[in-house]
Amino acid sequence: MTYCLGMLLKDGLVMIADTRTNAGVDNISSYKKLHILEQSDDRTIIACTAGNLSVTQSAFALLKEGLEEDEDSSGPRFPADMPNMHRVAGLVGEALQISREEIKETAGEDSQYSFSGSMLLGGRFKGRPLRLYHIYKEGNFISCQPDRPFMQIGETKYGKPILDRALEFETPLDDAVKTGLVSFDSTMRSNLSVGRPLDIAILPTDERTPALFRRIEQTDEYFNMLSAQWAIAIAEARAALPLPPFMKEVE
Amino acid sequence: MTYCLGMLLKDGLVMIADTRTNAGVDNISSYKKLHILEQSDDRTIIACTAGNLSVTQSAFALLKEGLEEDEDSSGPRFPADMPNMHRVAGLVGEALQISREEIKETAGEDSQYSFSGSMLLGGRFKGRPLRLYHIYKEGNFISCQPDRPFMQIGETKYGKPILDRALEFETPLDDAVKTGLVSFDSTMRSNLSVGRPLDIAILPTDERTPALFRRIEQTDEYFNMLSAQWAIAIAEARAALPLPPFMKEVE
Repeated sequence: MTYCLGMLLKDGLVMIADTRTNAGVDNISSYKKLHILEQSDDRTIIACTAGNLSVTQSAFALLKEGLEEDEDSSGPRFPADMPNMHRVAGLVGEALQISREEIKETAGEDSQYSFSGSMLLGGRFKGRPLRLYHIYKEGNFISCQPDRPFMQIGETKYGKPILDRALEFETPLDDAVKTGLVSFDSTMRSNLSVGRPLDIAILPTDERTPALFRRIEQTDEYFNMLSAQWAIAIAEARAALPLPPFMKEVE
Repeated sequence: MTYCLGMLLKDGLVMIADTRTNAGVDNISSYKKLHILEQSDDRTIIACTAGNLSVTQSAFALLKEGLEEDEDSSGPRFPADMPNMHRVAGLVGEALQISREEIKETAGEDSQYSFSGSMLLGGRFKGRPLRLYHIYKEGNFISCQPDRPFMQIGETKYGKPILDRALEFETPLDDAVKTGLVSFDSTMRSNLSVGRPLDIAILPTDERTPALFRRIEQTDEYFNMLSAQWAIAIAEARAALPLPPFMKEVE
């Protein structure tokens, strides 16, 4: 399993991904799922992947090789040639869809596996706004909007309630990163197939502030403290809630 | 969707179910999912259902009519004839499996629907311990054990983290009911297809204390207060967590 979270806020873009992969519980290992597709003066493009690893890896290989030309262009098409994030998202979606179809065909129709992968794609072209997209296995995609400033792929449910409660477009960047890490903590507690290290990418809206990339290891002091303190706070909050009045009858 | 929760604790058995059903978001209605199959001086048997409503309703109809005799018996078999909860669980599983197969056959192989249903079955025979079972769509079942004193069916993930954190076999009954309701609150916030009224059944371990059945309506003062107070407590606990130290670089 996998958990990836993207948050597109007033002050910047945050993307967080775990690194655990498994093919059954007896075959667990670590793969980076947060990929910097491009980082230059002109643009920064980051992708987080969920689903079948062979599909998402093939999609990246295809993007590097270049996709077949279309009617308008004179050669293979690369993310670097695209004029904006929307077109990059389209090309990445196309690569994902092609890889899935190719792998499905090789595997044959009677394969028991679902060869599907999805991605969060985020980034910016110089001088233009930050963007975040959820790219579906079929290749289509949606763009993150201020009304719901986050997107999730993979094991999304355990970590969603805290985001629903706490995250708004106006939430400051550091507060959002903290909330995102709490969301990962809840997910990792309830699903063993999501695990550290976590990779974080932060692109501030203000282009003069450089992007920040950080890995949260098993030994990360801040995360361990956050996890412990949150557990205590939840326990105390729960204990402070009043008991059901109707239970007096059975006490 | 549906959310049903069963908790088998030192002090008693608690079962909670929502009542919302939907066949698409444009076809939502209320059906009771917590059913008292039997309540007499000799035994109390309660079932909560999730999944395809036609399958679980047919299973109950079948249990009322009686299942076909087997080699050892001389007539149709009813839950009331079973000698213990384990055998009741087996019969209910059989009814669930037969209903599913019949409905699948009527629908034809090319139907797009998954005709599956599952149940939580709880209760007690007089003088014997309380039991709780998770009955799968295939008719097999597992019994709840003190190491993990709760079982869920339906939309289980949003409400699981609080149970993972707070629930133990020794948890007092009123505290468990409170925690169960918090689990429902989180689920209903994140999934609109789980909704009130909620039905609660409580069977204390001490047989001299009568069972308690309660419905939590939209207007229930205790639940509304619990939901509001929990939201505030979570917000405060989150706000009190320290901000990530590595964020100083992008501020």
